[in-house]
This record gives sequence, structure tokens and C-alpha cells, in this order.
Amino acid sequence: MDNDYSNMKKWQQKIHEVIFGYHTAAGKVFDLALLIAIVASVLIVMLESVKDIEAHYGEELRMIEWGFTFLFSVEYLARILSSPRPLKYVTSFMGIVDLLSLIPTYLSFFIVGTHSLSVIRSFRLIRVFRILKLTHFMGGAQQLGTALWGSRHKIVVFMGTVVCIVVIAGTMMYLIEDGQNGFTSIPKSIYWAIVTITTVGYGDIAPQTIFGQTAASILMILGYAIIAVPTGIVTSQMMTDAKKLGTITCSNCGEEDLPNRSRFCLNCAARLNNPPIQQ
Amino acid sequence: MDNDYSNMKKWQQKIHEVIFGYHTAAGKVFDLALLIAIVASVLIVMLESVKDIEAHYGEELRMIEWGFTFLFSVEYLARILSSPRPLKYVTSFMGIVDLLSLIPTYLSFFIVGTHSLSVIRSFRLIRVFRILKLTHFMGGAQQLGTALWGSRHKIVVFMGTVVCIVVIAGTMMYLIEDGQNGFTSIPKSIYWAIVTITTVGYGDIAPQTIFGQTAASILMILGYAIIAVPTGIVTSQMMTDAKKLGTITCSNCGEEDLPNRSRFCLNCAARLNNPPIQQ
Amino acid sequence: MDNDYSNMKKWQQKIHEVIFGYHTAAGKVFDLALLIAIVASVLIVMLESVKDIEAHYGEELRMIEWGFTFLFSVEYLARILSSPRPLKYVTSFMGIVDLLSLIPTYLSFFIVGTHSLSVIRSFRLIRVFRILKLTHFMGGAQQLGTALWGSRHKIVVFMGTVVCIVVIAGTMMYLIEDGQNGFTSIPKSIYWAIVTITTVGYGDIAPQTIFGQTAASILMILGYAIIAVPTGIVTSQMMTDAKKLGTITCSNCGEEDLPNRSRFCLNCAARLNNPPIQQ
Amino acid sequence: MDNDYSNMKKWQQKIHEVIFGYHTAAGKVFDLALLIAIVASVLIVMLESVKDIEAHYGEELRMIEWGFTFLFSVEYLARILSSPRPLKYVTSFMGIVDLLSLIPTYLSFFIVGTHSLSVIRSFRLIRVFRILKLTHFMGGAQQLGTALWGSRHKIVVFMGTVVCIVVIAGTMMYLIEDGQNGFTSIPKSIYWAIVTITTVGYGDIAPQTIFGQTAASILMILGYAIIAVPTGIVTSQMMTDAKKLGTITCSNCGEEDLPNRSRFCLNCAARLNNPPIQQ
Repeated sequence: MDNDYSNMKKWQQKIHEVIFGYHTAAGKVFDLALLIAIVASVLIVMLESVKDIEAHYGEELRMIEWGFTFLFSVEYLARILSSPRPLKYVTSFMGIVDLLSLIPTYLSFFIVGTHSLSVIRSFRLIRVFRILKLTHFMGGAQQLGTALWGSRHKIVVFMGTVVCIVVIAGTMMYLIEDGQNGFTSIPKSIYWAIVTITTVGYGDIAPQTIFGQTAASILMILGYAIIAVPTGIVTSQMMTDAKKLGTITCSNCGEEDLPNRSRFCLNCAARLNNPPIQQ
Repeated sequence: MDNDYSNMKKWQQKIHEVIFGYHTAAGKVFDLALLIAIVASVLIVMLESVKDIEAHYGEELRMIEWGFTFLFSVEYLARILSSPRPLKYVTSFMGIVDLLSLIPTYLSFFIVGTHSLSVIRSFRLIRVFRILKLTHFMGGAQQLGTALWGSRHKIVVFMGTVVCIVVIAGTMMYLIEDGQNGFTSIPKSIYWAIVTITTVGYGDIAPQTIFGQTAASILMILGYAIIAVPTGIVTSQMMTDAKKLGTITCSNCGEEDLPNRSRFCLNCAARLNNPPIQQ
Repeated sequence: MDNDYSNMKKWQQKIHEVIFGYHTAAGKVFDLALLIAIVASVLIVMLESVKDIEAHYGEELRMIEWGFTFLFSVEYLARILSSPRPLKYVTSFMGIVDLLSLIPTYLSFFIVGTHSLSVIRSFRLIRVFRILKLTHFMGGAQQLGTALWGSRHKIVVFMGTVVCIVVIAGTMMYLIEDGQNGFTSIPKSIYWAIVTITTVGYGDIAPQTIFGQTAASILMILGYAIIAVPTGIVTSQMMTDAKKLGTITCSNCGEEDLPNRSRFCLNCAARLNNPPIQQ
Repeated sequence: MDNDYSNMKKWQQKIHEVIFGYHTAAGKVFDLALLIAIVASVLIVMLESVKDIEAHYGEELRMIEWGFTFLFSVEYLARILSSPRPLKYVTSFMGIVDLLSLIPTYLSFFIVGTHSLSVIRSFRLIRVFRILKLTHFMGGAQQLGTALWGSRHKIVVFMGTVVCIVVIAGTMMYLIEDGQNGFTSIPKSIYWAIVTITTVGYGDIAPQTIFGQTAASILMILGYAIIAVPTGIVTSQMMTDAKKLGTITCSNCGEEDLPNRSRFCLNCAARLNNPPIQQ
């Protein structure tokens, strides 16, 4: 990558430093300005959806929105031009998000139609994800990601179990309440079961019969106990990851993840000259 | 078991490989097809319960449902025939679930009666559990199960305490609200207490008096604190399990918690005669 | 205690074995019968509160209730008589609960008056706590108790913080919603804040203004993050406790809680002859 | 600081001991009296907001409130006078809170106007935070603070992710429900998304269409899984902190994680020259 970088022209390097970098003052100012612009443009889209505001300031809001879209378009082109490997950027996750956050506004230009247009317009909110770029500053994001990825198998198993419980509980409830009190079909009853097991509890559908309330009580207590499982999964994974951070590597055979207290390598039995550790 | 297996006829072994196995390509295709068929058959039963859809496509849905039931019946027989120990399969948990998921449809054939029939029909949803077979692929399921089983004593104690709190809180509330505002009987008030302590909060029953709201507040804060307990139980158990899985002990110096892959003790450098570990 | 016990008469020892003991078959049968009787008597009180059932079977239920109260009274006396130290039993936690679960029924005999009587009657439900006696079988209860007790300081700090947040959030909301939409007074608004921060969310009081909904959103997200704290407290405490279980004691100086891997006592430097540990 | 302290006059030292100290009997009595006074004054403000009570005892409550404000003012002046470094106290967090809890009552004296006055008055509730001073007794508060501070990066990342999810989910829902069923604008839909993902679930806004309920189900299950993340963060941080607090390292053999109380290394028996540890 350093090689790619040195092959770039002077002006490309300068733009790259400002847009992609965050070590120089200019880079920091740019990132902050971008963050504010994204939040502002999202707020504009939100305000447009409020009828009273739309009626009074609709024209102005749409103009500001177009202004932001133009600025983001320029930024997108600058990113492509200043990137050492343009194709890699365009096909990267952030590159696709950058593009997707531009398309809806331009589409609203070509396709006329009030209703469908509003649908497309609000997908621009995905540009909020660009804010996440800033999290590269924080190692925290990566640690969270690692923990979630490391426990993906258990999360899938857990989610599958919850889906099964919810389907069966919903069906039972449909039969118990006999299609009354909002439990008009199995899909609707499953919706109720999800609302209940996740402890959201809107109350738009609620059991009225004694049997229904008894069954609902069991589901609630089950949900109460079940919430401990994903927590246990993530916490356990995080701590295992944290432990790995505190390991040393054998300088003889390169074996990794040796416990800190090791005096000999557990693979090649070489003596490890750990410097006396200060804390 | 290998013995039982080699005694089987050639065609039995072939069927066994496809139905029970998941190492061959045919076995994988079969498992995936079965998964799709189960989800599809569950969706059919769900759609039948929606009145609008039932009115238009009721006949077609019932036919498709019979088709799936026939296929699952053939599959059930094939499992029995190709099993090295048929009785063991039939009496196993999955064997019973397989049978139970077939019965309701056939029962609807013999017993006529619109209302009661619909009750029986939807119990077929238990066949959703067959999807869980696929979790055998994931060691995650076993780890979750081990953690829950290992902490069963604490979970029972916790659940018992919650039941006691809920019974007493419900009775108190019945007295405080004096049978008004939905607290018409002790069982109904206990139902409210469960809805509250699990933080579901439908709002169909809610205290209106000052004393009632004060008591409810205490119950809510209690429930808020109490939810930490099952989480603590499961997390603590998971981490203890995770630790035990990955460690061995040096027979020379007694050093504990050595990583599984250790060939030499990290404390005394003694050679560890671990059997090559398979994971 | 053995001394007290051997001083008891033969018949006292026999009764003691059945009532307090749980090693003999008779003791086990007694405990099970008592458990069933307690649950049954609680159910009777619950059923009495349901108007329809009270109207038809009120007389019968009251008679059964008196029967249970008589049995529990006999049991209470037997406990006193067969106890090696009667006063210690009477003043113990379980002794007081045993007595309190008897009083309400007898009080209903002397004091006439439909309304106040019903209040007293239902306090008998505290006898549900007697079921907890059975948890002595499970070490789990003690582990849970130890973890909660060990983290009492943090729990108090946490609870205090939650109370402060709730008081301030409630007052803010009273001002923002200006006494409308159910926020009629500060205490009522605090009730709403508790319902919200604990994620119960009845919906009987909900903000309607834009500012109110914004403030409520902040409170909800705060509550969402805050729930992690009690969980962290209990889990962390449980794991520290679990670790202590796996420690050894120096046979030279009696120093406790030495790590399992210790070769020398960290207090007196005596060599610890740990037997090679098998797992 | 000792230096500053010895430069103080006799009467200053005496007042300082009572107000700031908590080792002497007088200091303890003062702290307890202050705690009671704060709670009482907060309760007075609360009661004033209840219309019925205000109508009957409004005059009396206001007088008591003025009495408390006068006492707290005297206390504030005494703190400044008896402080070795008055400016440091005034600009400290607790100093600012102390001042802020006085201002609203005095402001209500100069500025007349029923409505705006009530707004200012209730901000005095911030004085509840003074109670937290008492938590200095408990090391628990500091441990909680350390854990939260240590995991601030991860918490920011998590909160940012939740905000993004909520904004996108709210917009989606606005489009799906097409501005009906309470989803009248994007901000309102985002409010609904927060109510849902935090599992509060008021039910004042709830999806009615099939697509809306499906999307809501996904959001609920997501929220259910997501709640595991802050819990994992805090728990993991707490345990890492707990470990670090209690361990030292041998300077001879480098053995880590030795208990604080160690006099000899448990691995090589070298004498550890730990300063006598005070806890």
C-alpha cells in the first residue's frame, strides 16, 4: 500500500491525506465537518416528513437537501480520485454505503411520483452509517465486532431456539384464545409472542381468558430467563478475548497465546526471558 | 454402534448415509431440503389460519399440507428402516418429535369437526423442532445446553423466589387496589405482577391509586435488579465451562490451567504426555 | 447442638427427625406433603378472591382453609416441642414466618368485618416462603445469597443513582408536559419515570409533546444502558466467589485462598505438597 | 492539603471536621441530618405539585421549603468558610451542585409568575445528588465509576450503533405504515423505534399492517440480542478491574497475578518486598 501511495501524484496525496487521513489538522477538520454535514442532512430529511414543517419550509428544505447531496457527490468523486486503489475503495463496504447514500436523491429527480418518491428518499438515511467511519478511531468497535463474530454460532443457535418457541407459543395462544381478543390468526399470535418474549409488551394484543393469561405468564417468565443467555454468550466471549490480549509469544518457536506466567514455552520448552513485569 | 452399522444391508447403509449423515453431498442436500420443507409446511399451516387466505386458497393449502405430511411420513419410515437400532431412534427425543409432528394431520382425517380439528392441526408446528437437528453441526448448542444444565440448581432457586415474590406482590396489590382497576381477583393480580416484574408491561391492568403506584414502583425496581441474577448465573457458568474445556494439569509440578495444546509444562518444562487432542 | 439433641427424649428425637430432618424416608415424605399442603392452601386463598368461585364454593373453601390452618398449627407446635432449642427456633427467620402464616386466619375469627378481614386473610400467603426451606437442599441458594450479599455496597450505590435519575427525570417531565397527558403531579411523573427506566412501559401515561418524547427517548436509552450495571455487579461477584472455591489452604500457617497453582505458601514460604491434581 | 489544613484557624478546622469530615461523631450526625433534610425538602417540592395538597397546605409547604433553603444556604457558606481551599470547593462538581440546588428558590423570589416559577422551582431536585456524597463511604461507587469509565469507548460505539439502527428502523416504519397508525412523521417513528428497541413498549404507537408487524418483530428480536452487548461490556470491564486491583507480580521469577497479601512468591518462594497494604 505504501508502494501504491508513493506512485500517486502530489495533488492526489494531498487530497488523500485530508479525506482518508485523520492525523493531520486538515484531516481532522474534514472528518468533523463531514460528520456535522451528515447529521444535518439526515435531520433535513426527517423534518421534511413532518407535515406542518413541510407545508411551510418544504421548498427550502428540498434545496438544502440538494446542496448536501451535491457536496457528498463531490466528496465521493474526490475519494475515488485520491484513492491509491480506486476499485478497492468502490467495492469496499464504506464505498458502497457512500454510493447508496447518494442514489435516492438523484433517483427522485428522474422518477416523478409523490408516494413512491418519498419511499426512495428516506433510504438516504443509510448515510448515517458513514458516521461509523469515525469509530475507526476507537479500538472498542473492533473488540465488540470480534466478540460478536466469535460467538456467532451460539447466537444462531439461540436465535433459532427463540424463533421455535415463538412459533409454538403463538400457535398455542391462537388456539387457547380461540381467535378472539386480537389473536385473529397464527401470524398475528406469533407477533404477540415476539412482543411478549422480548418484554416489549405493547398491550395492543393481550390475553383475556384465564388459560390465555396463564400461558402468557409462562412465556413471560421464560423470556425473562432466556434473556440471560445472549448476555452470557457475549460476556463470556468478551472476557476470553480480553484474556488473549494479555498473552506472550515464544521468541524461539513463535508459539502464540502463552499465558503471562509462563517460564518455559509450552511447545518447544525454551526458557522464556520475560522481563520483570511492572504494573 | 460401528458393529450394528456393519451388520446392516447395503441399501440400508446408503439410506442411512443420506438421512442421518451429513458428511456426504447427498446427506447435505437432504438436510437442506428437509429444512426448507419443514419451514414451508409450517408457513402453510400459519396461512390456513388467516381468514382471508383460507377463504380463497383453503383447498389448495390443505392439499399442499397433505403432500408435506405424506413426504414426512415416508421420511419417518425410512429413518426407522435405515436405523441400526430402530427402537433406539423411535424412543429418542428426535424420534418422538418426528412422530408427533405427523399425528395431527392424520387425526384430522378421522375426526371430523371444524373447531376441535383446528386445535389438533396446529400442534403439528412442533415439527419446527426438527430444524434443531441441524444444530448438531454447531458445538455452540452443546455449550449452551451444558451451561444451562450446570446452573440448573441456581435457576430453580431463582425461579422459586420469583414465583414467591409474584404471588405475594399480586395479593398485596389486590388488597391495595381493593379489587378495582382490573385487579378483580388474586390470580388476575398475580398475572399483573408477572407482567410487571418481567418488564413486559402490557398496560391492560395498571394501578391507579397512589399506594398502588408506589407498590408497583417497588416491584418494578425489584424486577430491574432481579434480572441481573439469571444473567449472572448463566454467564458465570459459561465462563467456568469455557475454562475447564481448555486446560490440563502438569503431572510433574501440579501447575494448573495449562492450555490444551501444551507439549511442555510452562512452569517446570516437563514433557506432557497428552494424547493428541482432536477437536 | 449434638449435646442438646442427645438430651432430648426419645419421642422428641423421632418427631425432630421427621419434621426437621430430610435424610430419612419419613422426613422426605413429610417435607413433600408439607410443600403440597402449602401450595394447596395458597391456591384456596387465591380461589376465594375470585367472585364467581366465592359465590358457589365460598363455604367449602373456607372450611378447607381452616383445615389447613389447623394442620399448620399442629405442625408449628410439633416444631417447638421437638426442637432441641425451642427459643432459637421461634426467634429464627423461619420460625417467625411459620407463626406469621398462622396468625391471619385466627385473627379473621375474632375480628368481624368483611373488608378489613379480607386484607388480613391474604397475608397468610407469606407462608409461601416456607417452600424456600426446601432450598436448603440446594447449595445454589447459598451461592446466590453470597453473591448478592458480597455486592451489597455496589447495589446500594446503583439503586441510589437510579432513584436520583428517576426523581429528576420525573420532575423534568412534569415541567415539559406541563401537567398534561397524565403527568398531573411530580409523584405521578416519577411513577412514569420508573415505569420507563425499568422498561416496563405500561403506556397508561405517555408523553405526547415533541420535547416530552425526546426527553423520554433519552431516559429509555439511559435505562437500556443502565441495566448492564446490576448485571455486571452480580456476574462479577459470582465469578470471584466461584474462583475462591478452587483455592487451597497452607497446612503450615493456615493461610487461606491460595491459588491452585501455588508451589510455596505466599505467607510463610512453606513448600506446599499439592498432590498431582486429576481432573 | 495537610499544609493548607494546618494554616486554617481553630474554628475553621472545627467546622471543617463536622461538615466535610465523617470520622468524628459530630461529622456523622451532621451527614445524617443533611441526608434527611435533603430528602424532606425534595418531598416538600413533590407535594407542592399535587393539586389537592397545594390547595390545602400550599402556604405551609412553601414556608418549610424556604426554611430548608435557608439552612442549605448557611451550610453552603460554612463549607466555603471552612474549606482550606475555598475556590477549589466552589469549582468542584459537588460545589457547583450545592450552589445550583440553592438558586431556583431564590430566583422564585425575584421573578414573579406562577407557571415559569414552577419550572425553576423543581430544578432544586438536583440537590438529591448531594446524597451521593455519602457514597464516598463505599468503595463500590468508585469501582462502578472506574468500570464505566474504562469501557467508555465501547459504550460510545454501542450507543452510536443503536442510534443508527433506530433512525433507519424509524424511517423504514414511516414508509411501511405510510404515515398511518401513529407513524405520522419520521421523528415520531424514530420515537417508536426507541420505545421498541429498549423493550419499553408503551403501545401508544403500534404497527397495524402485516409488513409493519413483521418489521417490528425483527427490531424487537434485534433489541433483545443487542441488550447483551452493554452488559457484556460492563461485566467484562468490572472483572478485568477486579483482577488488576488484587494482584502483584514477582520481581524474581516474573510470576503474575499473585494475591495482594503475598509475602513470598508462590512459584519461587522469593520474599516480596511489598509495602504493607492498607485497604
